[in-house]
Amino acid sequence: MNGDKLKSWNDGPVKQSIINFLDSTVEEGLDYVKPEDRIATFDNDGTLWAEKPAPVQLNFLFLAFTKRVQNEPFLADKQPYKAILERDKIFFQNVIEQKPEAIIALEDVLAREWAGKTPDEFESEVKEFFATVKPEKFESNFTELIYKPMLELFDLLKDYKYRVFICSGGGRDFMRVICEEAWGIFKENVIGSAAEYEYNNGTLKRGTVLRGIALGPGKVEHIFARTGRLPVFAVGNGDVDIEMLESAKFRLFINHDDDKREYAYENGSEKILAIAKEKNFTIVSMKNDWKEIFK
Amino acid sequence: MNGDKLKSWNDGPVKQSIINFLDSTVEEGLDYVKPEDRIATFDNDGTLWAEKPAPVQLNFLFLAFTKRVQNEPFLADKQPYKAILERDKIFFQNVIEQKPEAIIALEDVLAREWAGKTPDEFESEVKEFFATVKPEKFESNFTELIYKPMLELFDLLKDYKYRVFICSGGGRDFMRVICEEAWGIFKENVIGSAAEYEYNNGTLKRGTVLRGIALGPGKVEHIFARTGRLPVFAVGNGDVDIEMLESAKFRLFINHDDDKREYAYENGSEKILAIAKEKNFTIVSMKNDWKEIFK
Repeated sequence: MNGDKLKSWNDGPVKQSIINFLDSTVEEGLDYVKPEDRIATFDNDGTLWAEKPAPVQLNFLFLAFTKRVQNEPFLADKQPYKAILERDKIFFQNVIEQKPEAIIALEDVLAREWAGKTPDEFESEVKEFFATVKPEKFESNFTELIYKPMLELFDLLKDYKYRVFICSGGGRDFMRVICEEAWGIFKENVIGSAAEYEYNNGTLKRGTVLRGIALGPGKVEHIFARTGRLPVFAVGNGDVDIEMLESAKFRLFINHDDDKREYAYENGSEKILAIAKEKNFTIVSMKNDWKEIFK
Repeated sequence: MNGDKLKSWNDGPVKQSIINFLDSTVEEGLDYVKPEDRIATFDNDGTLWAEKPAPVQLNFLFLAFTKRVQNEPFLADKQPYKAILERDKIFFQNVIEQKPEAIIALEDVLAREWAGKTPDEFESEVKEFFATVKPEKFESNFTELIYKPMLELFDLLKDYKYRVFICSGGGRDFMRVICEEAWGIFKENVIGSAAEYEYNNGTLKRGTVLRGIALGPGKVEHIFARTGRLPVFAVGNGDVDIEMLESAKFRLFINHDDDKREYAYENGSEKILAIAKEKNFTIVSMKNDWKEIFK
């Protein structure tokens, strides 16, 4: 097999190392990976689509919480509503660093906000969001800002009989609304943070509990719970992806260094960038390794 | 397509109704089911293999708890160890009926028993169990007592591009040890009750918490959490499968009525049998509909 599918990738050591690794896992030898073990996992925000100026789902949360505070004004001064609506950087930094207080506060409001909704009701809200809210920097829809090289990599992995999973700290049910059309990935292969649903009298409704946001070690825990395995091939871009990448054999780190075609930043990726260099992860320069960025 | 794959099934209305239903879901018309929605879910104990005289995994639990009580004799008089080791029918009836006290007690000891073990350590224990403990009534291994007609049904469903999931109240990680070899089903398609794992310093270990046993409405909740959908095609045999079957379009109920080749009983299936008749589920008579029972 070869990398003809990676048309948006420039030829060079990064593209070649992906192909060499995949070849080695299907050929007899020390690096052979049994078909059942061929699991690949991808982060979403910043790995499959732009996460600046803010992760896509945060726009959805802001909208919902803004409406909520309009209806219940006393919440405006309460945490974490206040922090979320003021886009308080410290609050979100604490979430990224998985500080328990910030995580618990966020889990709590996320669970409450949509409690009692059916899957169809939640899906309608998400669809309306995607139909009406547009990205800031680009004239397009969020779902058009998915990285073409990543979709090509999904295809290549499937040729090698890898099963591809998305594992995001973001909302599982939010991603599942778009995963089949946008990524060609079935809902069941989407892993993320999620409210627990309750089934009563023939109806499934969101409960009031959300447990275990899939960040940092939580990504590995969610992947094992879902698949019974650790990934062989893992792709991520943020500090919250460190553990997922370290748990895999092949680690692909996406470096956002292209401020002309997308965004250039290291904020939220300082630690993983250092580890990637130190531990010889394969580092994708979006600027140099990708001919095209968006699908 | 046709039912040539169902070689162990006698021709008759049950076999025909399975084939008719599957045909109708892939042909244009009112019953057409989009490929992405084609989810089939199967219970395990009593649906894929014998659950009498006791579910297979209970033998595994008895062994582990017996050893535990030998090492810590003071536990012998403590609940739920006492009830489990004395095979106290009331305790297990309460579990089947999902009485909160029994469920919480069971979750607690199940989580504690293997807390701190890695996935590999747990897998070794399960493998040793299957290699050394044999069924009471049959001269074979537990994994040879899997129902051949069900394996044929997996194959048929795959021809129709259904994705097959197993959803058991039993242990997810217990079933995942045998699922690929015994059923030809990837670990990620096995849904069940499970301890939460914790990832620390590059090592995954079982935690002390087990939440949400997949019984009754819990089966539907687990299926939705895992797949983002409700099943189109569902198969079960016990009262704990009622909700799963009711949530599906096609409901196949396995009636254990063959005491010569297996076991005949209604205990634990009284309610679902009544509902199956009342709501026109498709009822499999193991005695009449299956030419062969075991693979």
